[in-house]
Amino acid sequence: MNDNTLSPTTAPLPAAPDPTPVSLLGAGAMGTALARAWLAAGHPVTVWNRTPARAERLAAEGAVVAASPAEAVAGGRLVVLCLLDDASVGEALDGVDLTGRDLVNLTTGTPAEGRTRAAWAAERGARFLDGGIMAVPPMIGAADSGGYVFYSGSSELFDEHRATLAVPAGTVYVGADAGFAALHDVALLSAMSGMFAGVLHAFALIRREDVAPTDLAPLLVSWLAAMAPMAHQTAAQLESGDFTEGVVSNLAMQVAGNATLLRTAEEQGVSPELLAPYMSLMERRLTDGHGVEDTTGLVELLAPRGD
Amino acid sequence: MNDNTLSPTTAPLPAAPDPTPVSLLGAGAMGTALARAWLAAGHPVTVWNRTPARAERLAAEGAVVAASPAEAVAGGRLVVLCLLDDASVGEALDGVDLTGRDLVNLTTGTPAEGRTRAAWAAERGARFLDGGIMAVPPMIGAADSGGYVFYSGSSELFDEHRATLAVPAGTVYVGADAGFAALHDVALLSAMSGMFAGVLHAFALIRREDVAPTDLAPLLVSWLAAMAPMAHQTAAQLESGDFTEGVVSNLAMQVAGNATLLRTAEEQGVSPELLAPYMSLMERRLTDGHGVEDTTGLVELLAPRGD
Ligand SMILES: NC(=O)c1ccc[n+]([C@@H]2O[C@H](COP(=O)([O-])OP(=O)(O)OC[C@H]3O[C@@H](n4cnc5c(N)ncnc54)[C@H](OP(=O)(O)O)[C@@H]3O)[C@@H](O)[C@H]2O)c1
Ligand SMILES: NC(=O)c1ccc[n+]([C@@H]2O[C@H](COP(=O)([O-])OP(=O)(O)OC[C@H]3O[C@@H](n4cnc5c(N)ncnc54)[C@H](OP(=O)(O)O)[C@@H]3O)[C@@H](O)[C@H]2O)c1
Repeated sequence: MNDNTLSPTTAPLPAAPDPTPVSLLGAGAMGTALARAWLAAGHPVTVWNRTPARAERLAAEGAVVAASPAEAVAGGRLVVLCLLDDASVGEALDGVDLTGRDLVNLTTGTPAEGRTRAAWAAERGARFLDGGIMAVPPMIGAADSGGYVFYSGSSELFDEHRATLAVPAGTVYVGADAGFAALHDVALLSAMSGMFAGVLHAFALIRREDVAPTDLAPLLVSWLAAMAPMAHQTAAQLESGDFTEGVVSNLAMQVAGNATLLRTAEEQGVSPELLAPYMSLMERRLTDGHGVEDTTGLVELLAPRGD
Repeated sequence: MNDNTLSPTTAPLPAAPDPTPVSLLGAGAMGTALARAWLAAGHPVTVWNRTPARAERLAAEGAVVAASPAEAVAGGRLVVLCLLDDASVGEALDGVDLTGRDLVNLTTGTPAEGRTRAAWAAERGARFLDGGIMAVPPMIGAADSGGYVFYSGSSELFDEHRATLAVPAGTVYVGADAGFAALHDVALLSAMSGMFAGVLHAFALIRREDVAPTDLAPLLVSWLAAMAPMAHQTAAQLESGDFTEGVVSNLAMQVAGNATLLRTAEEQGVSPELLAPYMSLMERRLTDGHGVEDTTGLVELLAPRGD
């Protein structure tokens, strides 16, 4: 027991602040899901969409439709952008007065676009937060969907609007550098692409065999989940600079093992194209004399530092 | 409550059968780990290794060292092979009488090698089980390590020796076709290779940035574990033949998203070589008119059925 339990306060709880009004630019698949999540949580939502019909649907659900981006921006301090790409953000907000606004850009972009857009917003007197959405529309506003959004840029903006930002999905703030949300977003999506490529190769291997894909799937899923934590060892090795730390199967052993993977692909009539570049990179690193190391050193081949 | 609870038997439990003697050929890193697991569980172990010194180490731990493969095979009915590759199995057992033996081949090979080796064993009057070890030596004999072995081939052999086979690691029997253990093994390792390639690309993206690899790692690990179950949807689509079933982000959207991944790689000075082939394959499939489908159809490009 603690003080809270022993002497419950008799003072009334502070009144919940009125839900922050949200101005949303973009009512595509993602923008619509965001608008619905904020409406469901009681936030006043003003929405603008280039093609008015998509915004009109949301009007029936309680949103105010703005006739122009300028009108939407004027409608509230918190302005959320969810447009196709960075160019459409520039186009939509061209000439619009952003002074004193809090811009949250949930439009997918690159780290450099996030940084350039942050500088652009600062010049216009707005605070800026860039976001990278790690979710698909059906996960937005759904409790425990596991979806979340990376945020980077103004920590003041993030702290002030955290509760509002947490309505559609979880929030993960990754730093003041406005490029970091996109950087983290793209890093995770890139890793996922590699995993999906590997999974498709696996299913291709059984295509001509009497093995049910739905029997292989649970084995793949638990194996990948069990092996994903190897990324912790890779990270530790990158930080220490010692790529032999904790190695069990070194590069030389893995290159030898690759031969079995390639021969199996050939036997099964499967193109090696999705696995071959990784294996070639491993061989290059082995040839460079790093056979006793882990595969971590491939990072140096992928992203050589300027000299 | 059931009958067992109400009337517990007063008869003594049947005596535990004496632990099955195991004859092991190969005392490399993996063979040594296997031998130690069986010795620790009280199984008599006879071991042969081409280079005697490695077997001698195990003698000190209780194993009987055989002077030749024939002597090892003669030492017990259950004969476990853990040699470098399929060729070394043929070499070691050349001319050895295998009549009435139960061969368990834990040497890594391809599905075709497993099938050929099974026929070879049958000709010699032996039962045969092929295995694919989903573990590294430190996981062998360690409870709850998560490691296991795929087995395929003689189900009689598997059922009879199941308890002994379960000593070093978990067992997963995947069918009477002796090629299936290797097929499952290689499918999982191939998928893992894709995932590791993606993870290395992700770490390469942050190499020139002020982001700690150990901060990115937990995000990568939980993201990959959360996304791995997409393999269930891929499997269901492969079985139904309907690649639009349950699609949220179709191929057209994913190809558009790839552009951001590639531009980010370029900005960050990272070679796109590990991701490019997957993206090219997606574009090929899109060009073929499958934009509204999931990426599942790439399996057809990877492993075209003969016509
Ligand atoms: N959907 C997802 O699974 C997902 C997941 C993570 C992140 N995202 C990101 O969320 C953002 C929106 O995606 P979405 O799925 O909503 O896409 P979408 O359904 O295609 O909608 C695109 C939106 O951008 C607008 N737009 C396009 N070009 C424009 C321009 N030049 N000026 C003004 N508006 C323009 C469209 O207006 P019109 O209606 O007039 O065409 C529409 O509102 C994208 O950056 C996407 O990468 C989406
Ligand atoms: N280590 C792992 O992480 C791991 C994981 C899964 C599966 N496996 C599989 O387990 C098997 C053994 O691997 P390991 O790690 O123990 O390898 P290892 O340490 O390199 O040992 C190789 C073994 O094969 C023997 N050998 C090689 N060529 C031979 C020949 N021509 N005739 C007879 N014996 C021969 C070696 O004998 P000498 O001592 O005389 O050289 C040694 O006993 C391999 O198929 C491997 O793919 C290993």
